[in-house]
Amino acid sequence: MHITLNEAETLVQSVFEANGVLADTARSVAHALVHAEAAGQYGHGLRRVPAYIGQARSGKVDGKARAIATRPRPAVLVVDAAFGYAYPAFDIALAELPTIAREQGIALGAIHRSHHAGVMALTVERFAELGLVALMFANAPASMAAWGGRKRLFGTNPIAFATPVAGEDPLVIDLALSTVAAGKIMAARQKGESIPEGWAFDADGKPTTDPHAAHKGLMAPSGGAKGAALALMVEVLSAGLTGSNFSYQASSFMDEKGSPPSVGQTLIVIDPSASTASAAERIAELAHEMASEEGVRLPGRRGQNARRTAIEQGLDVEDEVISAIRALA
Amino acid sequence: MHITLNEAETLVQSVFEANGVLADTARSVAHALVHAEAAGQYGHGLRRVPAYIGQARSGKVDGKARAIATRPRPAVLVVDAAFGYAYPAFDIALAELPTIAREQGIALGAIHRSHHAGVMALTVERFAELGLVALMFANAPASMAAWGGRKRLFGTNPIAFATPVAGEDPLVIDLALSTVAAGKIMAARQKGESIPEGWAFDADGKPTTDPHAAHKGLMAPSGGAKGAALALMVEVLSAGLTGSNFSYQASSFMDEKGSPPSVGQTLIVIDPSASTASAAERIAELAHEMASEEGVRLPGRRGQNARRTAIEQGLDVEDEVISAIRALA
Repeated sequence: MHITLNEAETLVQSVFEANGVLADTARSVAHALVHAEAAGQYGHGLRRVPAYIGQARSGKVDGKARAIATRPRPAVLVVDAAFGYAYPAFDIALAELPTIAREQGIALGAIHRSHHAGVMALTVERFAELGLVALMFANAPASMAAWGGRKRLFGTNPIAFATPVAGEDPLVIDLALSTVAAGKIMAARQKGESIPEGWAFDADGKPTTDPHAAHKGLMAPSGGAKGAALALMVEVLSAGLTGSNFSYQASSFMDEKGSPPSVGQTLIVIDPSASTASAAERIAELAHEMASEEGVRLPGRRGQNARRTAIEQGLDVEDEVISAIRALA
Repeated sequence: MHITLNEAETLVQSVFEANGVLADTARSVAHALVHAEAAGQYGHGLRRVPAYIGQARSGKVDGKARAIATRPRPAVLVVDAAFGYAYPAFDIALAELPTIAREQGIALGAIHRSHHAGVMALTVERFAELGLVALMFANAPASMAAWGGRKRLFGTNPIAFATPVAGEDPLVIDLALSTVAAGKIMAARQKGESIPEGWAFDADGKPTTDPHAAHKGLMAPSGGAKGAALALMVEVLSAGLTGSNFSYQASSFMDEKGSPPSVGQTLIVIDPSASTASAAERIAELAHEMASEEGVRLPGRRGQNARRTAIEQGLDVEDEVISAIRALA
C-alpha cells in the first residue's frame, strides 16, 4: 500500500503509545524507523516495529525510560539510555554535542544501557548538516568471531561517518564490518538459495555456502583479518568506553527473551573549522574529483535520493507490514 | 650483520646529522625507523633511510624544519610539521595531547605539511601506555581508486588504534585499507612471481595477477567497496581536517622528485576514565575472552614480542642495508 511519511510516522507513533511508550520516545522511534524505510534500509525500518513493540511489552526495553545526559569533562557527554530505545539518547546527543564540539573543537558522546542503533547514517548526517564531521561506532549482539576463532565474539559492529561538503549534501558512510548484512543470509534461507563463498562460516568456523549452516554459524568479517580487527576496535570504542555489554554479552535485538541488550554507541563530533580553514570547500574538491569519474558513486547519495523521493511521493509498503503494525495497536 | 638497537640508532642518527638534519630531528627519525625495524615492519624500517636522506638532500624534506604546535580550541592541537619529517610532529603530539585528553576527556591532534607516518602502531601504542585510547589516520600518495573508478585517488590510508589493557600490553591495531601492502607486490615483481587474485587491478581497473600490471595499476581496497569507503573517510579525517594535500595531490615518499608530499595525519586521543569506570579492566576481560580461544592472536602482540626480543638481543640486518646507510654519511 501507499502511505506518506507523515501517515507512517503517525501510525507507528500511535502503536508505540498504545503499548505504554512515552509520547516523546514514540515520536523519536517512529521518526527513526520511518526514515530508515525511506532511505531504503528496510532491515532497520518498518519491519522492526513488531520486535520493538514485543520488547516494550516484555520489559526488555523500558518504554518509559528517560535518557539522561551528564558532562563529566568539558568535551565529553555521557548519555544513559536507561534501557530504553536508542533514538531518544541520540536526540540528546544531537542537541548537546554540536555546541560542545564548537566550543572545544571535538566532542565525545558515550551512550550506555542502549539498544539497536538503527541506520547510523541518518544520525551522523544530522551533524554534518550542521557543518560538523561525525564518527559513530556501535556494537551489537555477537555474530562474528575473532580472526582465527569460531566463537561468536563481536557484532557486525558498524562504523558511520559524515562530513559536510560545501554546496552539496554531506558525504555519508555507514558500513557493518561483516562482508554482508545478516538480512541477506536470512533472505537466502527463506528462498532456499545457496549463498556465495566468503559471506559466512558454519559453526565449526569453516566457509559455507549453505545459508542454514551460516545462520547457526558466523558472519564473515569484511576483508578477513582486517575486518575482524576493526570489529575489535569498534567493540572497545562503543562498549569499552561506555561501560556497556560487550557484543558476546548482549541479548538479541530481535526477540523478547532475556535481559536488555545494554549495548553502547560512541559518537565523535569534530568542528572542522577548529583545525583548518575552508574544510568543507576542500572536501567539495575531493567529492568533485570522485564524481567526475564515470562509474563512481558518492557514498550516501543513494539513501539521500531515496529519502527525498519518499518525502515527495510517499512510501510503497507491503500490505502485510502495515497490517502487522496495525495489529499491535 | 648483528647490531644492537642503540648502535643502529646512533648510526642512523649520525647519517641524518651528516646530511644537515637537526640533531633532535635526526634522533627522532632514527628512533622511529629502528623501532619499526625491531617490530618487524621492514618496509618502514632501515630500508627507508636512503629515500629519507635523498629527500633531505634534494630539499623535498626540510631537515632543518622545526614542527610548531598551536591550540586553537581547548581540545585541539594543530601541529605544523613544516615540510619536515613526520616524527618530530608526532613527538609534540605525544608531549601535549595526553594532558589535553585528560583535561577535556578527548583531544584532536591535526598534523599538516607532513611526511610518511611510518609504523603508526608505535605512535598510538605510546598513548595507550599512558592509559589513553588513541586513533590515528594518515593519507599517503595515491595508489587506490574510488569504488567503481580507475583513477588513483586514495592512498592505502591506514587506520591505527590502541587501547590500554589492565595488567597487559596495550592492544594495538594498525592496518592499511588496501588488501595487501604495496611491498608484497614489489616483492613478487622482483621474484618474477604472479600475485593472487584480489590484490590489485591493472591500469584499466581490471583484476590482475601480473605484478608488473599491478605496479602500473591500482591496489585493491580491503573488502572491496567497504575498504574504498573507509579510505575516503581516512582521506577526509587526515587531509580534509588538517588542510593537507589529498592523496591524489601528494608526491611520492620514495623519490626525490617534486614538491613535498605535504600529507596529513590526525590523532584522536581519549581518556577512557572520562566516560566510564574501570575501562582498562573491562577491556582486559574482552582480551582474555579472545585469548582463551585457540587460534586467536591479540592484535599488536607479534610486534610487541618482536621489539622485546630486539631490545634484548639486537637486530640481524642484511649487510647491504647497513652498507647503504653507511655510504650516506
